[in-house]
Amino acid sequence: MKKVAVVGCTGAVGMTMLQLLEDTDYEVVCMASERSAGKRLKAGNTEHLIEPFSVEGCASCDIVFLCVSGSFALEYGERLAENSYVIDNSSAFRYHPNIPLLVPPINGQRYKGEKLIANPNCSSAIALMVLGPLHDAFGLESAIISTYQAASGAGQPAMLELREKAKAFSDYGDQDDSENFAHNLAFNVIPQVDSFEDNGYTREEMKVVWELRKVLDEPDLAISTTAVRVPTLRSHAESLSLRFKQPVHSLAQVRELLAAAPGVEVVDEPKQGVYPMPMTSTYKHAVEVGRIRYNLIYGEHGLDLFISGDQLLRGAALNAFEIMQLVDD
Amino acid sequence: MKKVAVVGCTGAVGMTMLQLLEDTDYEVVCMASERSAGKRLKAGNTEHLIEPFSVEGCASCDIVFLCVSGSFALEYGERLAENSYVIDNSSAFRYHPNIPLLVPPINGQRYKGEKLIANPNCSSAIALMVLGPLHDAFGLESAIISTYQAASGAGQPAMLELREKAKAFSDYGDQDDSENFAHNLAFNVIPQVDSFEDNGYTREEMKVVWELRKVLDEPDLAISTTAVRVPTLRSHAESLSLRFKQPVHSLAQVRELLAAAPGVEVVDEPKQGVYPMPMTSTYKHAVEVGRIRYNLIYGEHGLDLFISGDQLLRGAALNAFEIMQLVDD
Repeated sequence: MKKVAVVGCTGAVGMTMLQLLEDTDYEVVCMASERSAGKRLKAGNTEHLIEPFSVEGCASCDIVFLCVSGSFALEYGERLAENSYVIDNSSAFRYHPNIPLLVPPINGQRYKGEKLIANPNCSSAIALMVLGPLHDAFGLESAIISTYQAASGAGQPAMLELREKAKAFSDYGDQDDSENFAHNLAFNVIPQVDSFEDNGYTREEMKVVWELRKVLDEPDLAISTTAVRVPTLRSHAESLSLRFKQPVHSLAQVRELLAAAPGVEVVDEPKQGVYPMPMTSTYKHAVEVGRIRYNLIYGEHGLDLFISGDQLLRGAALNAFEIMQLVDD
Repeated sequence: MKKVAVVGCTGAVGMTMLQLLEDTDYEVVCMASERSAGKRLKAGNTEHLIEPFSVEGCASCDIVFLCVSGSFALEYGERLAENSYVIDNSSAFRYHPNIPLLVPPINGQRYKGEKLIANPNCSSAIALMVLGPLHDAFGLESAIISTYQAASGAGQPAMLELREKAKAFSDYGDQDDSENFAHNLAFNVIPQVDSFEDNGYTREEMKVVWELRKVLDEPDLAISTTAVRVPTLRSHAESLSLRFKQPVHSLAQVRELLAAAPGVEVVDEPKQGVYPMPMTSTYKHAVEVGRIRYNLIYGEHGLDLFISGDQLLRGAALNAFEIMQLVDD
C-alpha cells in the first residue's frame, strides 16, 4: 500500500484531495502547520489526525502532495523530492524547463519519471482539458480567453466571505472592506486575480499563457487572456475564442471529438437551456463544454466555446490525483 | 416647455428615465397599462400619476419614449411617430435601414431629423462609448467581446429575485426554478441572454454584432461575442479584445484619448486596485474603462480592455435621454 502525505490538508484544495483519497488504497498522512497539528480533521466520512509538517515525516511517504504557498514549496520541494514523488500545487516550479507541468490526459505521455512535478493553475487545467483534443485535431493557432472565476480560488475563507456578504448586502455603499479579495465580490465582478505584472496583465493571466504553451508544447502559441473574479463559489467558467490552422468541417465532429475526450462532458443543447454553468459543474469531475459554434470572425477556422469546471477538483486536486496515478503506474 | 411621454414607466428603464427627467424643464407624462393606470409612482422626489397608454395621449407630447416590448413598439411605433418624436428602447426597429440607431456621442452627427429613432441594446451602447473613439483613432479591424451582464437587463423583478435567492442560498441543489432567468443566477453564471438563433449565437450576441456595425457605420466589421449573465445587479461589464488597422504607439495616448471622450471615465491604475467594476460603475453616467493593455497576440495593433457601465443608465435610459436632447436641439 502506497503512503501519501497531504501537506496543507486544512485548505480548500487539501480537503478536496483528502476526499478524493478516501475510497482508495492509499494510506494518507495529513500534515499542516504546528498551529493545526494534533487536531482532528473530517474529510468525507474519514477522520484524520493532523500531524505537524516535517521533512522526515514526508520521507516515509511515497508521494507528497504540497498544497501550500509557493515560498514553502520553493523551500522544501526539491529536498522532499530526494525521497518521494512531490506534486506541487503552487506556481513555484511550473515554469522551470526541467520540471514537468502535467495535465495527465493531455501531456501525461511525455512524463519521464521526474520526482518533482508541478500541478497547473486552475484556469489552465480546466481550459486544457478541452484545448488539448482540439489542438490535436485542428492545430491551435490562437486563443482569446476571458474567465469567470469562483471565490474558491482565493481559499475556503473567501468562499465563506462571499456567502456572508451576499446575505448581508443592502447596497454597494455599505460593504465593509474585503479580507480575501481586492474588493468586495458580492454582486460585483473584479477584473483582478493575483497581482499585476508590468505589462498590465495579472500574474493569473500570464500563468494561463505560460502554462497552455508548456502543456501543449507550443512555446510560441498566441494567447491573450482576461481573468475576472465573479461571485460564484467553486466552479470557474471561461469564454474561449479559438482560431485553428485546419478548417473545422462540422460542429458535429467537434462535439463527437470532445465527447470522446477523457474528463470532458459535452453539455450543448442551448435551445433547451443546456450549456455549461458553475451551478451544474460544481462537484463534477469532468469539465463541461458547450455553446459550441463557429467564431463569427474566423469562419470555419475558428470556434467559440463556453466551459465550466470545478476549481477545486479539475482545477486542482483531481488533476494532482491523476498525476499521482500516473506516477504510480 | 416640451412634453415627454414615458410609456412603460413602471419598468426598470422607465423608472430610470423618470429620474433623469426629474430636474429638467420637460413636462412628464407617465403612461402604463390599464392595470397600473390611476396609481401613483414615485421616482426620485417626484410623485407621478400613471395614465393609461393611448395614441391620443401620446399625440399631445413632443417626444414619446417607449420602454415596452418589441411587439408593442411594432404595433404603435410608426403611428406615434406621425405626431411625435418616438424613441424606442426595444429591438423592433434597430435593424431597419431607414431608422436611425443612435448613440449620440458616437453617431449623433449622422442624425437627419427622423421622427422614429431606435435606442440600442445595453451591451452595445456601453461598448460603443469606448469603441467609437478608438475606431476613429485607430480603425477597428476586429472585436472579440465577452460580457458579464447584470440582472437588471431582465427587469426589476429579476433584480429582486437575485437578491432574495442569494440571501436564501444554501446549496445549488435546493434552489427553486427561476422566474426571470433561464436558470437560477445566484452564485451562478448563465451563458444565455435572450433566445438562441440557428447559428448557435443568442439574439443578444447578434444584437451586439449588428448594432456595433450600424452605429460605427462599418457594415462588415468583424465581431464575435459571448453574452453571459452574472450575479450582479445593474451594471454590465465587458472584456474586449480589439484589433486595429493603425498601430497604437502608446497606452498613454489611448488613456488620454479615452479620458477626453464624452461619457467615458478612465479607471486604470491596476496596481492600486483601480479598474472598472459593477460596484463602482453602478449609478454612474460614464462608462468606466480600464485594464488598458496591448493584446498579447496583436502586439501594437491590438488592445485588451475591461469596461463597466450602468445598464439602466448608459445602457438604456441615459442614452435615450441624450437622443431626446439631440432631437430637441
